[in-house]
Order: sequence, then C-alpha cells, then structure tokens
Amino acid sequence: MKVLIAGMDGYLGWTLSMHLTNRGHTVVGVDNFSRRKNVEEVGSWSATPIQPMDERLMAFKEVHGKEIGFHEGDLREYPFVKEIVRKHNPDTIVHLGEQPCAPYSMIDVEHAVFTQNNNIIGTLNLLFAMHETSPHTHMLKLGTMGEYGTPNINIPEGFFEIEYEGRKDELPFPRQAGSWYHQSKVHDSHNIMFACKIWGLRSTDIMQGVVYGTRTDDMTDDRLLTRFDFDEVWGTALNRFCAQAIIGHPLTPYGRGSQTRAFIALRDSMQCLTLATENPPEKGEYRVFNQFDETYSVNELAKKVQKIGKKLGYDVQIKNPENPRVEAEEHYYNPHHEKLYKLGFKPIHPLDEELERMFKDLEGFKERIIAKKERIMPTIDWRK
Amino acid sequence: MKVLIAGMDGYLGWTLSMHLTNRGHTVVGVDNFSRRKNVEEVGSWSATPIQPMDERLMAFKEVHGKEIGFHEGDLREYPFVKEIVRKHNPDTIVHLGEQPCAPYSMIDVEHAVFTQNNNIIGTLNLLFAMHETSPHTHMLKLGTMGEYGTPNINIPEGFFEIEYEGRKDELPFPRQAGSWYHQSKVHDSHNIMFACKIWGLRSTDIMQGVVYGTRTDDMTDDRLLTRFDFDEVWGTALNRFCAQAIIGHPLTPYGRGSQTRAFIALRDSMQCLTLATENPPEKGEYRVFNQFDETYSVNELAKKVQKIGKKLGYDVQIKNPENPRVEAEEHYYNPHHEKLYKLGFKPIHPLDEELERMFKDLEGFKERIIAKKERIMPTIDWRK
Repeated sequence: MKVLIAGMDGYLGWTLSMHLTNRGHTVVGVDNFSRRKNVEEVGSWSATPIQPMDERLMAFKEVHGKEIGFHEGDLREYPFVKEIVRKHNPDTIVHLGEQPCAPYSMIDVEHAVFTQNNNIIGTLNLLFAMHETSPHTHMLKLGTMGEYGTPNINIPEGFFEIEYEGRKDELPFPRQAGSWYHQSKVHDSHNIMFACKIWGLRSTDIMQGVVYGTRTDDMTDDRLLTRFDFDEVWGTALNRFCAQAIIGHPLTPYGRGSQTRAFIALRDSMQCLTLATENPPEKGEYRVFNQFDETYSVNELAKKVQKIGKKLGYDVQIKNPENPRVEAEEHYYNPHHEKLYKLGFKPIHPLDEELERMFKDLEGFKERIIAKKERIMPTIDWRK
Repeated sequence: MKVLIAGMDGYLGWTLSMHLTNRGHTVVGVDNFSRRKNVEEVGSWSATPIQPMDERLMAFKEVHGKEIGFHEGDLREYPFVKEIVRKHNPDTIVHLGEQPCAPYSMIDVEHAVFTQNNNIIGTLNLLFAMHETSPHTHMLKLGTMGEYGTPNINIPEGFFEIEYEGRKDELPFPRQAGSWYHQSKVHDSHNIMFACKIWGLRSTDIMQGVVYGTRTDDMTDDRLLTRFDFDEVWGTALNRFCAQAIIGHPLTPYGRGSQTRAFIALRDSMQCLTLATENPPEKGEYRVFNQFDETYSVNELAKKVQKIGKKLGYDVQIKNPENPRVEAEEHYYNPHHEKLYKLGFKPIHPLDEELERMFKDLEGFKERIIAKKERIMPTIDWRK
C-alpha cells in the first residue's frame, strides 16, 4: 500500500515509517521538525541521540536496503498539503503530525493557542486535501485515550447505545479531556467524524494509551533509533520513570498516584497501526479504536520500574511530588478495547520484559539524561 | 453591572448593548467589523441600512442620553484582549464575537479554517485574559442549538445522567454538529468547560435557537437599527423567508422541509441574555442553557410566513429547492429548555405578531433586498 506519514520525524512516526517499509509498503513522510525545536525550547532533548532526517534516511537505506520518501513542510499550509496528497494519492494517511504534549500546551496562552491552531488546522487541511484530490484515502488519525477523561462508567470505542427518557440512540461517547492538547484531539475527532459524514471519507480515529519503549526490531543500528523523551514536559509516565531510575533520580508519580491510565508498548503500537492500515474502513465510515494493552495506576507502574531496577542493580526510590495537573486521583476506569483484537492484535511483550529492554537501552544514554536532569521535576502547573 | 460585549457590531451584539445600557448596566463593546466585510465579500448586505459604529454610538446618545463604550480590535490578538479585560474588569463578558455563519464556513478550506481559527482562538484568548486579570468575570458565551445535531433522544441542557453497562454518571451530552461553523462552537464548549474546571472560572454556554426579528423597543430611531441578513449565506431561515415574501421571491425551505429547529425572537433573545447576565453562575460553574421558545419545521415556518403575507396583501409562493446541506430531513427533535424559564423567561411575542412587525419593517427596505435578490438562492453545497 502507499502510505503517507504526517509527523514522520516523531517518536511514533519514524518508528512506523521503518516498520511499514520493511513490511513492503511504500512510505513517504512529511514533517516540519517542530518537535525537535519545541523540545529544545524547554531546555531538553531526546535521551537517544537522534540523527537528522537525511542521515536517518541514508542509514535506513544502508541497513535495510529500502527507500523512504520525505518532504519537509507544514500541515498548516494548505497548498503544500494539497500538493503532497494529490501527488502521492496514498491509500492511507497516518496522521501523527500534531503537537502531542499536554504540559507543553499548558505553559501559557501562546502554547495553548499554538497547540490548538496547529493540530486543528493541520487536520482540517488534510481532510480538505483528501476530499479535493484523493477521496479514497483512509485517514488513520492518532488521537488519545485522554479524550475520554475518567468517567464513572465503562468507556466504549467511540460510540455507545444509550436509553434516555424512554428513547434510544447510538451516540458519540462524551469527551472530557484534561489539557489544551487533549482538547485539540477532541476537536479533531469531531471534525473528522463530520468530514466522513458530509464527504464520504473514511477514517480510523485511534484513542491510544500512553506509549512506552525505546526500540523496535527495525532499529538494528543506533542511527535508526527513534527519539525518547524523559523531561517533565515531553516525557510520558513510564518512559520518564525508566530514565529517572537509570540516573538514580526518585520516580515521580504525581499526587496520590492512583490515577489510572491505559498503556501500550511501542512495538504493540506499531502492530496496531499496521492492522488499521491494512484493514481500512469502508467509504464514509468513521470508526474509533481504543488502542492499548493494559491499564495501570501510575503508582503501580512506579513499583514495577522499581522492581525491575532493583533486579538489575539500581537503587530506585519513589517520591510522589504534588500533582501539577487537575485530575481525579481516585476514579473508576474501565475502557473497552476489543476492535483491534478482532483484527488480530496480539500484545507480545509482557511489561516486565519490555522494561528490562528499556533499562538496557537507556543505560547507554545515561550521560544524556544526567545532562538534563534539572528538567525532570514538574514546574508547569495546570492551575497557574 | 459592568458588561463587556465582544462582537458588539453584530445582529445580537448591537441590539444587546442598547438593551443592557437602557436597563442601567455599563456596557463597553469590542468588534473588528469582520461581519460587515464578510457579508460584502459574498456580494450581499444588510436589508436594514446600518450605520458605522461611531454614528451608532452618537445616535444612541442623542436618542437615549446614555453612553456605550467601544474598542475596535481583534479577539485573535492576545495583548489586545488581555488589556481590554484587565482595564474593564467586567462582571460579565457576553461573547458574541465569532464568525456565526454555517454556509460561510462551508465555502472552501480557507473559510473553514478562518472560522475555526477565529472562533476557537478568540475564545481561548478571552478565557486566558479572564484567568490572568479578571477571574471573577462571568463568560456568557453564545453557542448554538446546532451543536447537538438531531439525536433520536431528548436533548437535555448540556448534561445528562445516564446508565451504561450497569453504572451511572452525569456526562456532557454528545455533540453532532452539522457545519464547520457549528463544529467551532462545539470546540468552544469543550474548551470553556475545561477552563471552568481547572481555573474555577464561571460560564454560561448558551445553546441558542435560530433568532428572528427586525427590531426591539430600543430602536426608536432608524439609525439605531441592527443588521438584518437575508441572503443564502448570512440569512437564517425565518428572516430569509420574510425578506423573500416582501419582494415576491418564492420562500425556500430546503429539501423536503421537515427538518425541525428551535427558534427564538430577537426580543426574547435579549430577555434571555439579560436574565443570564443578571443571574450569574457560581465560581467554577459551567452551565448550559438551551435558549429558544418553540421548535418548528422549516416548512411550517414557510407556511406561517405565507399566511401572514397573504393577510398583508402579498402573493407568497413556496418552492423547496434541493437541500444544499447534509442533514436529516425527517427526524425526532425534542430539546429541553427549562432553565431560563426558571430564571423568569416569559416569551412575550407570539410568532404571528412578530412576523407582522417584520413585514412592516422590511417593506421600508424592499429596494435593498431587491438589489441583492440574486444572492438568495442556495449555491454553497455541503458535499462539494
């Protein structure tokens, strides 16, 4: 299949472009490198020393013998977006080209506005470009489980049938997102659902859990590593805990730590995105997949990291800092996730084994984590 | 009370600023005059010959002896928004400062992007300005009944308690909006709900029905008239039908015409917005009012306009053109609207009487409607 990956330079984007190319798909990517700039802006960097895009592409060709296409450009520029979609006429657009970070969106008005404008307008431009030049294309869009928040009922995959005041309907599940970034994903979901309805486009909207992991089997050469963020802004819970453990920094589950989220390994995320790509929805269909493996509280995860760390000889402490976020710390959490399993998803990496791999990988980049250790403790406060 | 009206130059904004000022409130307005430019862009104009803002303000002072403040500026510019909110420290911001038109948002990608960017960023800027400089302020935000779409169950006022798979929760009612414009209002609603949650702001989110009417009692001088749009882009169903009837153009309920919507008279909209202003929510409260009087199908409205027209000596035909929109033409529609009645809302203008007033007003501006009659039939197609 012909696959266009928007946001190819990111954590998932680079990993997926290698994964799909090695499965025999024709991949072309787009990126404006905003992620590298935005991480630098907050004084941090990737624990893995990632290569510039041209070196990534050359190294991939050298190691795997295959070409990946690439265009530098900004999804907010409609003429660029339209030309790329028209030219490549892809079977699938995997849309990872967004500002993906909750704390970054919560810094101030400028970052909130950047996040919502960037994400909403980029997605609108892709939808219009599909409608105008490539209406058969499947948009595989990365959303987040965070769109749902933590309701006191089970979370279905996007839609649910309910009875209210004696009548029934199947409706989109209400969204209660917890940051300006998460809100931008909710707005995208509404826009994409509407585009499918009026124009007969097809889309899979992925509500993905928090991703963890350092590498996949395609990264047989360190020049092919994807980025790995660990600071308070860009690092997500489990990845950040592993980086903390490696350098002897206490693990930092926020607040009481009972807040529970859905998680998925990087390898399993690749498996799921591949299943969705290779099993597209019907014309006009807007479908939602809850893409995760297991749910854990952040305290549980900290304890798992502590256990593996101890096994590998690290002295791992846990210290819960005050929670900078506005979120329920004790809550019900039971999301459905059957659709990807029905397509064949088999999570193949028990968390403990994946954590051991992460420790071994990160040990090699310890000095890079130490160099930015002052960017680990939370400073961005949701209430400020 | 001190009231800041964003979008003071619009149909509701100008009417409300006079209404609240004459009730003794201190009103200051903001506008960037985009509505005038955007109506001109599509080759149309207001049936009522509206005055420039400085003449409106002078005429109001001359006629009513009171001052209304005004600042020209754009809500997308945060320094401007912050300074205005800080300086006036209002009890209420009535936020009418958005691109309010579904067909305009459906013209092409440029208009869709303008609409969502303008509306979302303007609202975000107001929320941040309130949080940073005036956290006690009540944001009274104009949304639309169109946010809900036409579900097959009753529509509550914003939230509903439901049971799903054996558990209960009170959740935001799902939104299924029918244009890029309506979607922008859904996005605003999510953003405002979130700001109230994290910052303890207070807001009333008004899901308003379609407004109709030419004047209120404050418009004792024609220089004080508010705008009245009647073209395919900016004219809403009932107002457009009256303008059509006046010039002998067939009334144009789209498609089969059984699509049902909620309606409210301009005078009653003023009453409701005043009730919400004078009865603000608690700190941290996000409340939703469904603001309308009655629901009608567009065919029913066309027949009412025909009946009144005949009574007044007009020959009124009805010809349903093909529906340019993507919407259900036969559907269940039963929205709740109790909250404003509990605050004292008494709709005081039977539709027939209001229609007669509208005919009499519009007769005086017949030539201005005739001059733009080629802009009446629908050309903007939701599917294109």
